[in-house]
Amino acid sequence: MIDKLIQNIKRTGAPIVVGLDPMLKYIPEHLQKKAFAEYGETMKGAAEAVWAFNKEIVDHICDLVPAVKPQIAMYEQFGIEGLLVYKRTVDYCREKGLVVIGDVKRGDIGSTSEAYAVGHLGGVQVGSSFCRGFDEDFITVNPYLGSDGVKPFIKVCQEEKKGIFVLVKTSNPSSGEFQDRTVRDEMSPGAGGPESAGRPLYEIVGEKVAEWGADCMGSAYSNVGAVVGATYPEQGKVLRSLMPKAFILVPGYGAQGGKGADLVHFFNEDGLGAIVNSSRGIIAAYQQKEYAEYGAERFAEASRAAVSAMKEDIAEALEKR
Amino acid sequence: MIDKLIQNIKRTGAPIVVGLDPMLKYIPEHLQKKAFAEYGETMKGAAEAVWAFNKEIVDHICDLVPAVKPQIAMYEQFGIEGLLVYKRTVDYCREKGLVVIGDVKRGDIGSTSEAYAVGHLGGVQVGSSFCRGFDEDFITVNPYLGSDGVKPFIKVCQEEKKGIFVLVKTSNPSSGEFQDRTVRDEMSPGAGGPESAGRPLYEIVGEKVAEWGADCMGSAYSNVGAVVGATYPEQGKVLRSLMPKAFILVPGYGAQGGKGADLVHFFNEDGLGAIVNSSRGIIAAYQQKEYAEYGAERFAEASRAAVSAMKEDIAEALEKR
Repeated sequence: MIDKLIQNIKRTGAPIVVGLDPMLKYIPEHLQKKAFAEYGETMKGAAEAVWAFNKEIVDHICDLVPAVKPQIAMYEQFGIEGLLVYKRTVDYCREKGLVVIGDVKRGDIGSTSEAYAVGHLGGVQVGSSFCRGFDEDFITVNPYLGSDGVKPFIKVCQEEKKGIFVLVKTSNPSSGEFQDRTVRDEMSPGAGGPESAGRPLYEIVGEKVAEWGADCMGSAYSNVGAVVGATYPEQGKVLRSLMPKAFILVPGYGAQGGKGADLVHFFNEDGLGAIVNSSRGIIAAYQQKEYAEYGAERFAEASRAAVSAMKEDIAEALEKR
Repeated sequence: MIDKLIQNIKRTGAPIVVGLDPMLKYIPEHLQKKAFAEYGETMKGAAEAVWAFNKEIVDHICDLVPAVKPQIAMYEQFGIEGLLVYKRTVDYCREKGLVVIGDVKRGDIGSTSEAYAVGHLGGVQVGSSFCRGFDEDFITVNPYLGSDGVKPFIKVCQEEKKGIFVLVKTSNPSSGEFQDRTVRDEMSPGAGGPESAGRPLYEIVGEKVAEWGADCMGSAYSNVGAVVGATYPEQGKVLRSLMPKAFILVPGYGAQGGKGADLVHFFNEDGLGAIVNSSRGIIAAYQQKEYAEYGAERFAEASRAAVSAMKEDIAEALEKR
């Protein structure tokens, strides 16, 4: 699946993924009113407003970008009705040729991670039928439980030719609370000796990503990637070199504060190796001063303009390096 | 909600939670056949088999235990149909007076954690209606993203009088890979100085749990608890003293290898402070040699017998300490 992602990036010339993270406050009033009129002020009403919003955005951007990243929490908040629209969004985007990265951040002990893995990337055997659940192309995975919580995802990736992005250094302000802790190096028996300075935890996790990824290679990059926030460019530089074959999914651009110039360290010399996410900055562009001229009715055109601006910003930064 | 959990524990005399983690291989053939005959060998067929299985077990154990812990991954693997049965299970157990701990292990950056929190513990405003999603009593939370990923859950707990259990030291074999890493103490400016030995990461996370929990107290214990595996009793002893007001949810008893004698360190002197989970060991008891006499038809009676045996095992261990 990493090969398809790379192919899509080359075709569009945009190492960009649009985060489909719809909150009701981003959805124009006319769409909310229409959905509520038809389905009531209910979970179904909210979910149908989300669907109408997503579909119009996807229709307006699908030729410009290689991938989308729906954040499942934003659907899960509307219960079953929300998850039905999550699934509808995944299917619709895949039909449009987009690579779909389900931002689900799942992770558990072995047998449980296996259930998540088959539910999101594979399928289950029910009697004599093989049934697929959410069926995304990639998902994000939380590594806090260690290798036996991550490997079941990799096994399904191998079987299904799909991929994962493992959280390494997240984009949020307090990500350093645990991820940046200096840990003693326990890799070799002699390490930690007289004057071992130690390294931050995210480096240890990054090394594991490289190790896990070696068993799940595409042609040039691994199907096991990493999540590293645009808000931490210096850490991105270190992690880029620790995980040369891992694609980095970079959240935190735009609304969270990351800029084009911060992103160059996440890419390899081949111009590949990273895909930058923007959510609010694209899907709620019409609410920003810069794109206010479009108005709420033409929200999806504003999103298209924001994608083009982001593409330019990144291309410019990469040229300058 | 922690007060209700404690009240239920006192009433039943059993600090036990039954993990409702149904895999198809645990479900007796007669239930699978019936569901497949009615709904086909489909996700719906699988989910309805799960529901029939869950309901019969819950009916047989609900007077003996204070709480249940459905593992959402086992439902998510069957897609939307599975999640419908997850929700049905949550509602049914709450109707029966059981405290429901949704084992969802969610956790993300702030705004996204907020969406998970309202989806599982609170509700969303849709126009003029307030709608609830999954509506469990407690959920489990992954802390890898730090305070700003955990606090939105605590905020909803305060508003809704609900609770969370934060992963601190998990029960699986490779939990130590990151959680046991020795980290330099960065709490005070002088620390980490000449001869700081450092401490394992799970202790740092445990201290944070105590800190977060101080803002969300019930009468004697906090609504912010911790997950610490029965398979690591020595670590449990340390964490018990670091988080005196945190209830500890203890997985790993039974099938994963934890024994009654390992559990005593997780409890406080008041006989409270811990609730021990068993999943397979209870719900698939009829598949074990010890309870084989019940046969597949009377699987729920086998589960009831296994609960009683577990209750005795724990009571005996607590008496002996």
